[in-house]
Amino acid sequence: MAQQHLDPTDPTSGASPRPSTTVEQGGTPTGDALAVYLRAQATEFLRALRLHRETGSGGAAAGAAAGAQESADAARALRRSARRISASLHTFRGILDPDWSDEMRPELAWVSGTLGLEHSYGARLERLLVALYRLSGSTALPAQPVAAGAARVTAGAPHSGGPGHPVSAPERGSLTVGAAKAGALLERQLTLARTRAHSTALQALGSSRFHAVADKVAVLASEVPLTLTAPATDLRPLAFAAEERLTDAVAALPLVVAGHPYNAEALVHGLSPDPSPHPQDGPWHQVRLLLRLHRYAQEVLHGGTSPVDVHLLTAGQALDRHRDASEAAAAAAAAARTPRIAPATAYALGVLHADQRHEVEAARFAFQQAWQSTAAGTP
Amino acid sequence: MAQQHLDPTDPTSGASPRPSTTVEQGGTPTGDALAVYLRAQATEFLRALRLHRETGSGGAAAGAAAGAQESADAARALRRSARRISASLHTFRGILDPDWSDEMRPELAWVSGTLGLEHSYGARLERLLVALYRLSGSTALPAQPVAAGAARVTAGAPHSGGPGHPVSAPERGSLTVGAAKAGALLERQLTLARTRAHSTALQALGSSRFHAVADKVAVLASEVPLTLTAPATDLRPLAFAAEERLTDAVAALPLVVAGHPYNAEALVHGLSPDPSPHPQDGPWHQVRLLLRLHRYAQEVLHGGTSPVDVHLLTAGQALDRHRDASEAAAAAAAAARTPRIAPATAYALGVLHADQRHEVEAARFAFQQAWQSTAAGTP
Repeated sequence: MAQQHLDPTDPTSGASPRPSTTVEQGGTPTGDALAVYLRAQATEFLRALRLHRETGSGGAAAGAAAGAQESADAARALRRSARRISASLHTFRGILDPDWSDEMRPELAWVSGTLGLEHSYGARLERLLVALYRLSGSTALPAQPVAAGAARVTAGAPHSGGPGHPVSAPERGSLTVGAAKAGALLERQLTLARTRAHSTALQALGSSRFHAVADKVAVLASEVPLTLTAPATDLRPLAFAAEERLTDAVAALPLVVAGHPYNAEALVHGLSPDPSPHPQDGPWHQVRLLLRLHRYAQEVLHGGTSPVDVHLLTAGQALDRHRDASEAAAAAAAAARTPRIAPATAYALGVLHADQRHEVEAARFAFQQAWQSTAAGTP
Repeated sequence: MAQQHLDPTDPTSGASPRPSTTVEQGGTPTGDALAVYLRAQATEFLRALRLHRETGSGGAAAGAAAGAQESADAARALRRSARRISASLHTFRGILDPDWSDEMRPELAWVSGTLGLEHSYGARLERLLVALYRLSGSTALPAQPVAAGAARVTAGAPHSGGPGHPVSAPERGSLTVGAAKAGALLERQLTLARTRAHSTALQALGSSRFHAVADKVAVLASEVPLTLTAPATDLRPLAFAAEERLTDAVAALPLVVAGHPYNAEALVHGLSPDPSPHPQDGPWHQVRLLLRLHRYAQEVLHGGTSPVDVHLLTAGQALDRHRDASEAAAAAAAAARTPRIAPATAYALGVLHADQRHEVEAARFAFQQAWQSTAAGTP
């Protein structure tokens, strides 16, 4: 998928390392550092998996709510390490057993994707309900729309940071009929999707496919399949190539438009006859993934001790928000295509859709600002 | 209505004049300058009225389209001078015959209000149709939605300044069913309102009430009812008081929020059960009027020769856009309350409403930026 611009097995090749990829604690980061990192992530994966098994299925004695919380935390930790292992296999593919890497990566992507869906649907619902309340001029936020026993939902940050007090059901009267009906429709549709995702995740965790992945990760925890020359190979050219892929992709984004507030770009196609996801969002989603690869590559180089680049983190958060708002807008549009809904419901969903598309635009603006600061900090 | 902070009949009272209200061409502006200004505006009113009568009713020989254009231009000129006379009577009330002023002002407001409605409805429709096309991802703009014989409609500036080529009817196929139906509904409702406003304006121009106003303006063109001491009274304290009312009102606006892009403030209440106009818009509309009073007072002081303060003009245009978007959003919301519309229509109107409320927010941001520049330029 990604082109290697440099010969990673030749330590003398490649441009001189840039300031952002140097090591503070002296010494050139080599394949050994990669092995240390991968072993640590694999160990973390196994720890999270054990925790998930202990808390997830049936632990009735520990209390259902606390159990659900711990299970969700464990699932998050699982996904977290799966993403990091997969990213490292991608970025440093040149100094790893290529067959093993190419077999492992899609399996890890499947694990983190499958485990992430339930959380995504929950967060999307919460984001949309919070927006509906905000749009209704209600200062109160909705009560947690969490099905019993399912993972905890954390809110996407609302626009203007209102007070986060959950409200009791009668207070929902502050919504218009349309907003209330739209909320109920979204809750029905996204809760159903979430419940299905929960079942799918449980099935996946019990499948032989997952056991095969877990076995491979267990091997990785003790033995990283490096190439023969890898232990002495400088990692920086490979990390630099990951950074270059990121900067190239960012350079192709319409950042000038994004940096101009209220450019109304994200709502173009808001009423387009084409119901597919906004094609303009694709490049931003791609940059989000490349930025993550870059961040993880930096973790490998610095052994997890690197000082966090705040601007880079902010840029990443803006792209997370971009993705969340983009998907929430699509969910509102999809709900509006439900047959036989009332006009008031459809109207509220239209307002909601436009609101989330403006969130998309706001996120692009935030990314542009953060990226500019990153560029200023990295000469 | 407005409090006079200073005794305008006493030239020694009041604060020392500020740099923004000095005269370049030497000499203190006194009541004589006001008389010159009012006579000129009254003459302009009469000229525009004559032109409107010649072009408006029946001039079939001159060609209907050209006639409609000239008639609209004449109506605009009539409103323009009526606004300026009325504003000057307000700001400089203290050195004018108070009974005469108090009688005249509501009549002039009635004239400019009645004549302006037709244009407003036309501009609102065009703004909404342009937005519908933009939201549909169509680069083409709709054909001019102008009823034959009615005044020309000029577009409110679209968000992102697309190409302004009118399109032929078949190209409307690029809209979704919902957007097309929403456009047709808005066109029906706003064209009806516009036609009614046109009839009302014609009736008004033929009424005895209007003739009484015209007679008074004719007198004003030769004889301005100043108080005895007025010819030698310094105008600047009164003009400064108008400026102070403006700056006080601006100080009460939530400019800090407005200056933060994508604050999502204007869409709070976007789905509120209260269908009345957004209460948060009121103070901005009020500042729009006060800014106009300030601008016209400066015209009086400088005899129409003052260099235009670009930032002030920009600020005023932002507030015009704020008002236009606010009213367009309300029109979209009102159309969505039409009984028995299809859900797709309602959905499109919801998107449109939210879009225009974001235009409201964008206009506030633009005002904040322009006002900051004004403040920086005026120590």
